[in-house]
Amino acid sequence: MKHPLETHRAQAAAILESWGMAAATAATTADVLAWADLHGIESHGIAMLVEYDARRKTRPINLRPAPRVVRDTPVAALMDADGGLGHAPAREAMQLAIAKARSAGVGMISVRNSGHFGALGYYTTMAADAGLIGIAATSVFGIRVPPTGGGEARFGTDPWSFAAPGSDGRHFVLDMATTTVASGRVRNKIVEGQQMPPGWGFDRQGRPTLDPREVMDGGFLSPLGGAAESAGYKGYGLAVMVNILASCLSGSTLITDPMHSRQPYGLDVGHFVMAFDPGMFRMPDEFQSDVTRLCDAMRATPPVDPERPVLVAGDPERAVRAVRERDGIPIGPGLARRLHALAAETGAEWLFMDVASSDAAPEAISGLT
Amino acid sequence: MKHPLETHRAQAAAILESWGMAAATAATTADVLAWADLHGIESHGIAMLVEYDARRKTRPINLRPAPRVVRDTPVAALMDADGGLGHAPAREAMQLAIAKARSAGVGMISVRNSGHFGALGYYTTMAADAGLIGIAATSVFGIRVPPTGGGEARFGTDPWSFAAPGSDGRHFVLDMATTTVASGRVRNKIVEGQQMPPGWGFDRQGRPTLDPREVMDGGFLSPLGGAAESAGYKGYGLAVMVNILASCLSGSTLITDPMHSRQPYGLDVGHFVMAFDPGMFRMPDEFQSDVTRLCDAMRATPPVDPERPVLVAGDPERAVRAVRERDGIPIGPGLARRLHALAAETGAEWLFMDVASSDAAPEAISGLT
Repeated sequence: MKHPLETHRAQAAAILESWGMAAATAATTADVLAWADLHGIESHGIAMLVEYDARRKTRPINLRPAPRVVRDTPVAALMDADGGLGHAPAREAMQLAIAKARSAGVGMISVRNSGHFGALGYYTTMAADAGLIGIAATSVFGIRVPPTGGGEARFGTDPWSFAAPGSDGRHFVLDMATTTVASGRVRNKIVEGQQMPPGWGFDRQGRPTLDPREVMDGGFLSPLGGAAESAGYKGYGLAVMVNILASCLSGSTLITDPMHSRQPYGLDVGHFVMAFDPGMFRMPDEFQSDVTRLCDAMRATPPVDPERPVLVAGDPERAVRAVRERDGIPIGPGLARRLHALAAETGAEWLFMDVASSDAAPEAISGLT
Repeated sequence: MKHPLETHRAQAAAILESWGMAAATAATTADVLAWADLHGIESHGIAMLVEYDARRKTRPINLRPAPRVVRDTPVAALMDADGGLGHAPAREAMQLAIAKARSAGVGMISVRNSGHFGALGYYTTMAADAGLIGIAATSVFGIRVPPTGGGEARFGTDPWSFAAPGSDGRHFVLDMATTTVASGRVRNKIVEGQQMPPGWGFDRQGRPTLDPREVMDGGFLSPLGGAAESAGYKGYGLAVMVNILASCLSGSTLITDPMHSRQPYGLDVGHFVMAFDPGMFRMPDEFQSDVTRLCDAMRATPPVDPERPVLVAGDPERAVRAVRERDGIPIGPGLARRLHALAAETGAEWLFMDVASSDAAPEAISGLT
């Protein structure tokens, strides 16, 4: 079944409000989730409500947080998100970064005591829409990845995003986990009965494997690059960089700390968002025009497969958005049933179409990053 | 043969001065090259003089440049490097970034009209030594890498560096090409008669290959991650990010521009360096202590191979430095002969030990990034 963006957003907000979240916070959170689904990033869309529900039942998450700025300079601020989910404080942080970039040229905001904040591209696109370069990084909840040469997991999918405005409105938007793939794609290989390509994961001894069952059975996801010989230490290095920016700068509990995810309150996640003005260096239109020339030159590269033209980061998501703005955002029957059960449990209004009775297995959904 | 750092630096400076470079510029350039060799980064050390010599003979490089600040704000500046090599202007740019970070919290410097500047870790380590976070990126001369799904090369090794100070003086220093490996390592596989691991390169049709000869015979290096199925689009995305920061921000000729490397003057390389103060967010000692706790937790991970403990970015280079500070910096006979020939050609003083006559083939040296 497919629904327009507005219905999608309203359904997510209704469920969040039924949990006790303030209407404004729920609206922002739902907007970030719906943005991800609109752009085809289902792993960070409304499906996350299932994960958030599991979290709120196992540990206290502040559903009525009052984020506040703890330290402030003309170019930087430290925010405390007060133990709630990350979407609303991260959007506020990027708004503050943009305001500082407009007045001082650059704004860098560190956020502590926060939670999962959805797709990073949402925030860096805010900066690009304002004609600025945007950067975002976040620490994560789950520990799934060993350092290169290590036999135990020490860090997570630790994502990074960088966006720059193009003169044609097609921003360059890189939004990537620093792992090769997310665990959802490993699970899908098990479902399909297929081996994984090289570089996706390690077995429980930390050795590279092509068997997805070995990854899910006590094994690990691999950092971007895979094993050491194919430069997995670079993905590992990028993940440590992300943790330094998101956790060490903000004072969030380190992912390597024994108390990580065991604090009495909140989700221990830190964010880093930044915006800066290319106009400090060049005329803004010259900069944007060069970004577009660079991206267009990539797109014009003769493709290996004539059916698959070369794309630039941000292109696939824009293509999905164009279709979904016209046709609506699809939700599979398994996810719809799960959301329906969530809504029923707390008496949230059900805005999606009737959930068809079906005995198909619920769809796999990607894990929280 | 091995020589102390001082001899190494003096030898490089003598050759550069013999080309007409001003003494102060030659001293800075030699310092950056010797730093790389001291830390085991031979691909960016004194061996580069052979490449620089080839360049200066084929195109005008300004050996007496007068870099100048073109635009300036409290947090940013645009520098023009005046068509010379990049080491001296990049060091000046990072010094300026550090000064701005000390006064305003952050300094971002864009450099245009520059050349190869050696190892990025030199500059980001300057920031970490000052208690700051350092970032550096540069565009490159050589075009060796296709965008994901593309059958022609469009960009280069496009490196990125990030450094953060640790409380124990062991800074986290990530300095990485956004390709899986440099071409030197592909050449070494040919010499050894070995296949490459998955993810290193593509053949001339842009298809993944394990045969190093196919890479060197009209094929391509792969972005970090390798093929699309192992997330090579992430390395490709990072490379575009580096080009946006280094070229689009500075107004340097884009690597995709038909005039790239064909300008009448200089090497068309742009840099981006940045420093910022963690003290804007937390007490600096708390930040540095968390960086060290994070890195120590990685180092304490039980290794897959008990003989090979887990390392953190910056550790391998520090280990090499400790040995070379004690024993001197080794130079193989092939490189020594090449440098000796360079020195003889322009009458530069020869400070290294006598070059033993030998009919061994000259060593392969890594290509200019």
